[in-house]
Amino acid sequence: MMDTLKLEEILKKNLTNQSYQNFFHQVYEYSLLPAGKMFRPKLVYALAMDKNNGDFTEDHKLLASLIEIHHTYTLMHDDLPSMDNDDTRRGRPSSHKKFGEWQALLGGDGLLNASYSLISKVSPQNIPHLLKYFSWCVGAKGLILGQALDLSGEMTKSFENVKLTHTLKTARLIQASLVGSLILCDKEYTFNEYKSLHRFGEHLGLLFQFIDDLTELSEETLSIHESEVNPWLKDYDKCFSQIEKDVKYIRLYLKENELGHLKIIVDEYLNKMRTSLEKSSNIIENHIGNKLDPAVALLN
Amino acid sequence: MMDTLKLEEILKKNLTNQSYQNFFHQVYEYSLLPAGKMFRPKLVYALAMDKNNGDFTEDHKLLASLIEIHHTYTLMHDDLPSMDNDDTRRGRPSSHKKFGEWQALLGGDGLLNASYSLISKVSPQNIPHLLKYFSWCVGAKGLILGQALDLSGEMTKSFENVKLTHTLKTARLIQASLVGSLILCDKEYTFNEYKSLHRFGEHLGLLFQFIDDLTELSEETLSIHESEVNPWLKDYDKCFSQIEKDVKYIRLYLKENELGHLKIIVDEYLNKMRTSLEKSSNIIENHIGNKLDPAVALLN
Repeated sequence: MMDTLKLEEILKKNLTNQSYQNFFHQVYEYSLLPAGKMFRPKLVYALAMDKNNGDFTEDHKLLASLIEIHHTYTLMHDDLPSMDNDDTRRGRPSSHKKFGEWQALLGGDGLLNASYSLISKVSPQNIPHLLKYFSWCVGAKGLILGQALDLSGEMTKSFENVKLTHTLKTARLIQASLVGSLILCDKEYTFNEYKSLHRFGEHLGLLFQFIDDLTELSEETLSIHESEVNPWLKDYDKCFSQIEKDVKYIRLYLKENELGHLKIIVDEYLNKMRTSLEKSSNIIENHIGNKLDPAVALLN
Repeated sequence: MMDTLKLEEILKKNLTNQSYQNFFHQVYEYSLLPAGKMFRPKLVYALAMDKNNGDFTEDHKLLASLIEIHHTYTLMHDDLPSMDNDDTRRGRPSSHKKFGEWQALLGGDGLLNASYSLISKVSPQNIPHLLKYFSWCVGAKGLILGQALDLSGEMTKSFENVKLTHTLKTARLIQASLVGSLILCDKEYTFNEYKSLHRFGEHLGLLFQFIDDLTELSEETLSIHESEVNPWLKDYDKCFSQIEKDVKYIRLYLKENELGHLKIIVDEYLNKMRTSLEKSSNIIENHIGNKLDPAVALLN
């Protein structure tokens, strides 16, 4: 597979082409690098390798980069005081704390535009399909609506709303990574092949977000916001059934479709999450009022 | 030509397709409609009519809409407290005053994404070229950098910086309207034809912004910000020479290229600006310490 340093190098190169090396470039670079887990770029590469005989193309490098760039803009805007008001991100001051509010707001806009600009650099025949799917995933019917459901408080009104919000806010960009990667492969695929990967991405995105919600409970004292919105506190049984369903679906899909590289990425992620949950199991169990073992066992 | 109501109807239709009719849709609709002068959509249509035998295509309707939608996102973000902090827009409360800050920030992001999503709906063969040019105009090397120069104070350090900022922040979206419209016409054009229209758009954009700066001086008492940034207060002669050069270039270009519909739009705009300047000439003359007649005469 590819190591994280190599992924970062590609990401940095694609960012560099998108802006001039002037006073404002540091806002982009600080916000994007060093990158986080790069789960989404890894999905892009892994699916490409599974579908393209172990290889990926220049187009896939562009997609992996633009998805991470798009993801970063959402974090920059989310961290702003009028949104989630987070002072730190990945153990460092968040962009607006480092540079100021307008810089983080405008820098986010710059990265958002850069993500689309990078789409214009993939092979021309792939652009229309990729642009259509990607903009649907992240736009007003997708990721943006998910954020609106979250910030407005609509999300917490029912478990169905939680699922919808997680689907839009988290799964859509994961779906864009997978389906986008398939769009860029050399072979032609049927509508049903796209649809089934789209569905798989939804399950993977939901699992990702519900597990993330669970790890958010690793602190002894929860913030008021966390106590209000974390679905594991209110709907433990439904959350558990959800991840049980998602894990089963994901494992079966990976096996049936012989997606070996993708399986490595998913397993790597699940292992990391399991370790992290086990480390804080006592604290989390106190919050959820349930044993953590059954949930952790699902990730094995 | 097309009347404003018809333009708004097209705009509204294209917005409606981009989001669900839910609680958040009102943020988009309030911010976009009723539209302003719609100068940029009119440029799209006029150029199309000049180049396509008096007609424009469905693709042109999409472009006109997406440019106005993109323009609106820039206004929503510009108006936010951490940016220009404007409480009103077109005589009504600005979006964050009406709905709240996160709504205006997120609503702007939604419209930004919608503008790219609408590009995905034009005829597939036109998408790569349009996406490349549009994203360059409005991205980190274009409009966004212009905003950064403005907000950072870099703009006011020299007249050259003022020109650069106006070029990036204002002209680029006007260029996207014109060059984008040409990209969508049925005929094939040479690189030089695109380049000359690109250059014309830069002159038109600069003229638009410098005249706009002049009309900003119609208030008896200027804000501290306005006194600091308005180039007419510090560099009257350079501003005057600039608009003189732009007007000459624009008139010659329109004539030589027989752009009759575009000429109507430009004349309509210049007439409106002339009337507006004449109405406040005394106040403006006090601020700039020069007679306004020579500048107004240029717009005849």
